Amino acid sequence: MTRDSYAAAGVDIAAGNEAVARYKDVMHGWRHADQLEEIGGFGGLFRLPGDDRRALAASTDGVGTKLLIAAELGRYDTVGGDLVNHCVNDILVVNATPLFFLDYLAVGKLDPHVAAEIVRGCFEACKIHNCALLGGETAEMPGLYAEKHFDLAGTIVGLVDLRAVPKKEDVHPGDAIVGLPARGLHTNGYTLARRLLDTKTFGDALLAEHPSYYKEVRAVQSIAKVKAMAHITGGGLLENLPRTLPENVKAICEQSRWEVPAIFSELGKRGNLDHEERYRTFNMGIGYTLIVSLADAAKAVTAVPGAKVIGWIEARTADEPRTIVHPARA
Amino acid sequence: MTRDSYAAAGVDIAAGNEAVARYKDVMHGWRHADQLEEIGGFGGLFRLPGDDRRALAASTDGVGTKLLIAAELGRYDTVGGDLVNHCVNDILVVNATPLFFLDYLAVGKLDPHVAAEIVRGCFEACKIHNCALLGGETAEMPGLYAEKHFDLAGTIVGLVDLRAVPKKEDVHPGDAIVGLPARGLHTNGYTLARRLLDTKTFGDALLAEHPSYYKEVRAVQSIAKVKAMAHITGGGLLENLPRTLPENVKAICEQSRWEVPAIFSELGKRGNLDHEERYRTFNMGIGYTLIVSLADAAKAVTAVPGAKVIGWIEARTADEPRTIVHPARA
Repeated sequence: MTRDSYAAAGVDIAAGNEAVARYKDVMHGWRHADQLEEIGGFGGLFRLPGDDRRALAASTDGVGTKLLIAAELGRYDTVGGDLVNHCVNDILVVNATPLFFLDYLAVGKLDPHVAAEIVRGCFEACKIHNCALLGGETAEMPGLYAEKHFDLAGTIVGLVDLRAVPKKEDVHPGDAIVGLPARGLHTNGYTLARRLLDTKTFGDALLAEHPSYYKEVRAVQSIAKVKAMAHITGGGLLENLPRTLPENVKAICEQSRWEVPAIFSELGKRGNLDHEERYRTFNMGIGYTLIVSLADAAKAVTAVPGAKVIGWIEARTADEPRTIVHPARA
Repeated sequence: MTRDSYAAAGVDIAAGNEAVARYKDVMHGWRHADQLEEIGGFGGLFRLPGDDRRALAASTDGVGTKLLIAAELGRYDTVGGDLVNHCVNDILVVNATPLFFLDYLAVGKLDPHVAAEIVRGCFEACKIHNCALLGGETAEMPGLYAEKHFDLAGTIVGLVDLRAVPKKEDVHPGDAIVGLPARGLHTNGYTLARRLLDTKTFGDALLAEHPSYYKEVRAVQSIAKVKAMAHITGGGLLENLPRTLPENVKAICEQSRWEVPAIFSELGKRGNLDHEERYRTFNMGIGYTLIVSLADAAKAVTAVPGAKVIGWIEARTADEPRTIVHPARA
């Protein structure tokens, strides 16, 4: 990366990586006996006490600075769905089915109508997934948040049969990467997008809902064996795709195999972002990936409208990158 | 209440109550079949699928504006413990044992060292409870948070045998209220406290840890039948004590039965707060309450240093308040 537009916009990815490394140090030396090995870190897995076959999967996430656009435009009905769907997708990576969700809403000044709109968004998205909205916390914190500002985070807990948790070792060179279409920026890259685009003009596009891939993934699984999955969030394809792959393979994507939505081209142009920076900041039109055998690839894509084979798995030596996206020819 | 100092400090309790009423409207009409009836709303209960006897208990909470004091004093090692202990106490009310915890840390500018100190606080408190720190999210959101500001919230999930969940109907007139000593403000009343006290002078007192009552409650339960419990958080004794009591009883507390820590007298004096306002904003020295039969009361208090019988349960008619705290004579 020759420039770092995201850092210039105020988000320091290197600091984020350093924080994660420090967290590992902090937690070194003690681990609960029922806490299972992480698989890509999208969601944690915890063996259900007294049950040999099932685990709970859990993930906490926020909506990020997409919230500032919602606050600016006074549109509070969409961010709850963004959050729940984000969380659903995160635990779907380990194949978990949602049980319940809890929200955390923090505001500078509490407007009960606005708060209820936000919670309604969470509730409706939970209901679609037959997931209980089990609880939540609403905190009014003048001094920490500006009057119209708010933060929204949430935690999802799901259940998974341990035999159904994808195993990295099942992924082999020659496997296909199936990409499911994104519906906009989802919940990533907004700090940069807010600097590059007028949020009033691009409001609808910027607030487009972060979709859930739950039904889509179940549809693919009903006709093909899915070996690994990734939710394409902050870090884009370049950082998320390899999280659930073994070290001895690399993911090769070809941008010509899917259409990059216009908003990403606009962001790339306005921000003068190079190819890698685009793919490290935005989802670039791919919201979720599934690895299937080449033999299953053709039928897998028939299960979901807009699904495409976007690349394949190759053998990797230790010095090679773990994901490469080949640009489309201009 | 003749004045409303808390509202003047920027926290609108009426707006909070209205938001909660609106949430109920939002959620009206659909409820997951495995979501159990709330018991006081400290934590939600969800029947474990395929298991007739056990439920998961979950709660999400934040640290509130105690964070602003921590940020002002640059002390980041205590707020994680505050948060985990708060969550542990919340699900302890339904008798749940912690399984795992997830944190949400949002910052204006990410300092990996500070973030690791905060997460270390969570981790150490989790470890004490044999609770996995299963995951978390760290979000850098310039524009939403000032550079040195941060927000910290968390979600705990625990397990409980359904037969061990306290039942309101077990509480009867004549039962005793056992109070466990608080160690300061815990995590409530800080927006007001910050206006009334110089945070530098009172830093140590204001940052005193929100204790976990897990061991203490288990100690009481080992020698007495506990009929109901309450975690004394925002709303104080007046609002929290009745949350797990049936409608046909009232809780009568006598302030002369325990010592109110000096910091509360100082806050009350400086804020010119009346008796009710003090007991609705601060814990006033009681962090957790347990209801036991009068016969069990004397032995129950021997289980925990500083535990006191602070009052008793009486019959209540519909027009009476649900909790009364009789002031100590001056």
